[in-house]
Amino acid sequence: MVQQYSSALLERAVDEFAKLPGIGRKTAMRLVLHSLRLEVGAVDRFCDAISTLRHEVKYCKVCHNISDTDVCQLCADPRRDATTVCVVENIQDVMAIEATMQYHGLYHVLGGVISPMDGVGPSDLEIDSLVKRVDSGDVNEIILALSSTMEGDTTNFFIYRKLMNYPKVKITVLARGLSINDELQYTDEVTLGRSLVNRVPFTGK
Amino acid sequence: MVQQYSSALLERAVDEFAKLPGIGRKTAMRLVLHSLRLEVGAVDRFCDAISTLRHEVKYCKVCHNISDTDVCQLCADPRRDATTVCVVENIQDVMAIEATMQYHGLYHVLGGVISPMDGVGPSDLEIDSLVKRVDSGDVNEIILALSSTMEGDTTNFFIYRKLMNYPKVKITVLARGLSINDELQYTDEVTLGRSLVNRVPFTGK
Repeated sequence: MVQQYSSALLERAVDEFAKLPGIGRKTAMRLVLHSLRLEVGAVDRFCDAISTLRHEVKYCKVCHNISDTDVCQLCADPRRDATTVCVVENIQDVMAIEATMQYHGLYHVLGGVISPMDGVGPSDLEIDSLVKRVDSGDVNEIILALSSTMEGDTTNFFIYRKLMNYPKVKITVLARGLSINDELQYTDEVTLGRSLVNRVPFTGK
Repeated sequence: MVQQYSSALLERAVDEFAKLPGIGRKTAMRLVLHSLRLEVGAVDRFCDAISTLRHEVKYCKVCHNISDTDVCQLCADPRRDATTVCVVENIQDVMAIEATMQYHGLYHVLGGVISPMDGVGPSDLEIDSLVKRVDSGDVNEIILALSSTMEGDTTNFFIYRKLMNYPKVKITVLARGLSINDELQYTDEVTLGRSLVNRVPFTGK
């Protein structure tokens, strides 16, 4: 049974909100009615922020992170170690790693992982530009920080094959193991097995 | 630890999405990144729909439902029974009742219920205009279809007091009882008690 809207404008706004991922028609309706209770200025600011971003978005020409300038502030920062490049799927991953405050090198945002099921091949990703960065000779280490999935592993392997002709460049991956606070008995056996194989000397830290 | 955004435009768009009710910063980020993958035209349509609705929204001057015209299509429909008025909190309730296809009268949208805790008093609601509709003499029945909460009951009682001087007007409330498919043993005792007190003759339907 199709719900009948008393206003075509209302229906159109609900339709548009409901196109967003994870937002159904009931939530869309709630958001639209919320927007009707806001001042006109607040709604204008909302629309302007979304629209301006979409129209004026730029990506750093070095690492392909979102940026307001041609080269992002991370790549432009002289205090960062330009010889280490961390390869990630998307910009959320950059933010997650930055939030750890444990990494001081640069990034390379692939824009996804190789996934034949979703029609994503190597040419859809920023892999050629990564090889070019390595080819320029400034890079000593590539950290592969992709998801621990079949697609992530495939992409890791693809990149590894592309970079194995640069013997100067060390290729590393993130450590896999127990999460901090994980209880042994509830950890899946693959992770537990990896954490055993990759055990490290106890330093008391 | 504050997440660092590599783009001020991105941060502003995330800020705006995160102001919406029920949307946190992670979901806001996901929605913004989704909008970046859309064509520019699709984002423009989204913004235009929200903005146009907010700028051009009208409310029916009879029942206060959202409408594109001065009088909404329900109030303007000559086939509907104008002597019966169903009083509801908001426009979602109108749509819910319309979806049952069991009601052929008109509506009156209060815009909320009396709730001193939220600073909502009778003058914030469309109660005076309801009394005026009744005073015009065309109404035979007022159906109070508010939520079964303390605030809903308070509002029911307030409206009842305002309308008790119109003896011609019958004031009814929605039936309370078991939901269709409810199992007796899992029904709360107040609802079960009400369904016993308000039992109706068995008609085989």
